[in-house]
Amino acid sequence: MDNMSPHQSELAKRLQHVIDHKTKPLGSLGRLEALAMQLGLILNTDQPRLQQPQMVVFAGDHGLAARGVSAYPSDVTWQMVENFLAGGAAVSVLARQHGLALTVVDAGVAKDIAPRAGLQIRKMAYGTADASQGPAMTADQCLSAMAAGADLIKGLPGNAVLFGEMGIGNTSSAALLMARLTGLPLDQCVGRGTGLDDAGVQRKLAVLQQALQANANAAQPLDALAALGGFEIAMMCGAMLEAAAQKRVVVVDGFISSSAVLVAHAMQPDMLSCCVFAHQSDESGHARMLNHLGVQPLLHLGLRLGEGSGAALAWPLLESACAILRDMASFESAGVSQSDT
Amino acid sequence: MDNMSPHQSELAKRLQHVIDHKTKPLGSLGRLEALAMQLGLILNTDQPRLQQPQMVVFAGDHGLAARGVSAYPSDVTWQMVENFLAGGAAVSVLARQHGLALTVVDAGVAKDIAPRAGLQIRKMAYGTADASQGPAMTADQCLSAMAAGADLIKGLPGNAVLFGEMGIGNTSSAALLMARLTGLPLDQCVGRGTGLDDAGVQRKLAVLQQALQANANAAQPLDALAALGGFEIAMMCGAMLEAAAQKRVVVVDGFISSSAVLVAHAMQPDMLSCCVFAHQSDESGHARMLNHLGVQPLLHLGLRLGEGSGAALAWPLLESACAILRDMASFESAGVSQSDT
Repeated sequence: MDNMSPHQSELAKRLQHVIDHKTKPLGSLGRLEALAMQLGLILNTDQPRLQQPQMVVFAGDHGLAARGVSAYPSDVTWQMVENFLAGGAAVSVLARQHGLALTVVDAGVAKDIAPRAGLQIRKMAYGTADASQGPAMTADQCLSAMAAGADLIKGLPGNAVLFGEMGIGNTSSAALLMARLTGLPLDQCVGRGTGLDDAGVQRKLAVLQQALQANANAAQPLDALAALGGFEIAMMCGAMLEAAAQKRVVVVDGFISSSAVLVAHAMQPDMLSCCVFAHQSDESGHARMLNHLGVQPLLHLGLRLGEGSGAALAWPLLESACAILRDMASFESAGVSQSDT
Repeated sequence: MDNMSPHQSELAKRLQHVIDHKTKPLGSLGRLEALAMQLGLILNTDQPRLQQPQMVVFAGDHGLAARGVSAYPSDVTWQMVENFLAGGAAVSVLARQHGLALTVVDAGVAKDIAPRAGLQIRKMAYGTADASQGPAMTADQCLSAMAAGADLIKGLPGNAVLFGEMGIGNTSSAALLMARLTGLPLDQCVGRGTGLDDAGVQRKLAVLQQALQANANAAQPLDALAALGGFEIAMMCGAMLEAAAQKRVVVVDGFISSSAVLVAHAMQPDMLSCCVFAHQSDESGHARMLNHLGVQPLLHLGLRLGEGSGAALAWPLLESACAILRDMASFESAGVSQSDT
């Protein structure tokens, strides 16, 4: 709100006036009122309408996965891509429920996925290199992935994009990016991922410590993304920057999607004003990451699935916030008495 | 879960098996998994489907309102009933968004409401008596209101009911019921309602202290409901008991709806297993009330509007929980590898 243009400040005032004159006690819709304000500002209207929402799930494999940082084998990445496309995954079910168009992106899965409707093949390589031995991606690969993400957004309709991901090992990448970009100790960034036990978390921590050391020079956001990220995270980062530049609503899922925002925000701070954070994940670092970004998530449901499932679950709240702005009566129009105070 | 029949225990085991074999890490859908379990148990199937959901908003006036316990005048009760029926209130907008049939019930509004579609006239009186001087309702009125609520449910289709309310002064009734039935000090039960300032809260507290003294003998749940409740709360209580007896899903909105559960639960503890608590209200006593009942709300959005607005906002999560049970693939059916652990 601090760096608003005069036009935006004027719109913010108008939105607050509209919200405050709806038939309800002042502020009584809580978090939903702030959401309505944000959506109005992004879409540049006091009558926002979300159109043709796009759920985009970026998938990629990680060299780090061979080091035992996940409870699941790397094959699960392509298997889950198949599951997304077949309609059987959580994100498939939830996208259908809410009328979200689902696009799955092969950003760098270790296996070829047969082309079909709903799949975008933007494969950068068959998985990243092992970040514990050096950079996960070359600088060229990283920039190409970001550009592919931006290009992909240009081809999608609508004014809102929900971001999800799949990639065995990618809570490791997200934790590494978080440690590098926030300066927080690694153990405050690392969690159980898809379900490691205590010994597994210790093993993961040791491998990730090694990755930070092997990439000690990658301090700048773009270098850090290449060294510690993944193809799906880099592509998502580029897609988010493009979506924000186009003033689309960017709905951010969980820990990994938020790590892409962390990088995008470091490169282009004002992109954050377009981001709606769907939920606070059960992955232990996520609360700290959101806190670092200074943002409030909508849901607290103890989710730790990724895929975009949390973004899909939060989606109806965005629709509600817009509907309240557009369709609720004002005290004047409904002939309701106002507060005595 | 403690007092389950063998049939219910068997179903609970089957539901847990189904949930655990969906293509996702164990427990990774967090709170949604517990919700899926609960909905399966209420609807007695591992493939639950919510049908013809009914949003019922009970409205009534309170003698206490004349004592300055609310920021709004009593006229707002009938004005908001008109607004509900005209489609302009928050609950009207949200019910439309989610395809919830909306019924508004005149349980005891101080003014006559002209009959029309969507309105049920079950008026017990033109508002309750002033509880600071004696019982708000007679025992007969209270039982009649409960019976009318039960009768109303019998006439509605579907397997889920969302409960909302409207009544200037009814956070006072809810706080009084809470203090009497939980034994908590009154100041831990009383909040700002629709927006009292500090002085207003002190005034409200003094009036409610007087109401507790004037009804010192009303210690049993039914007596307390008559002495301290309202027509809309008593009717809602009867409706909830009937809905639970019929094994419908009971979706509870905020502070006032929860106070009706508090009474219903005191009369019939096992009704609680049918209740889904939609959200934790910003009204200060609500968190303590939910804690007393030992239940977890779905949303934490700082709402304090009532009407059923929070219940409507949470509704898609119930649909999601059912969709996940019915439509998500299992590891076997999708050919996805399971966890190493």
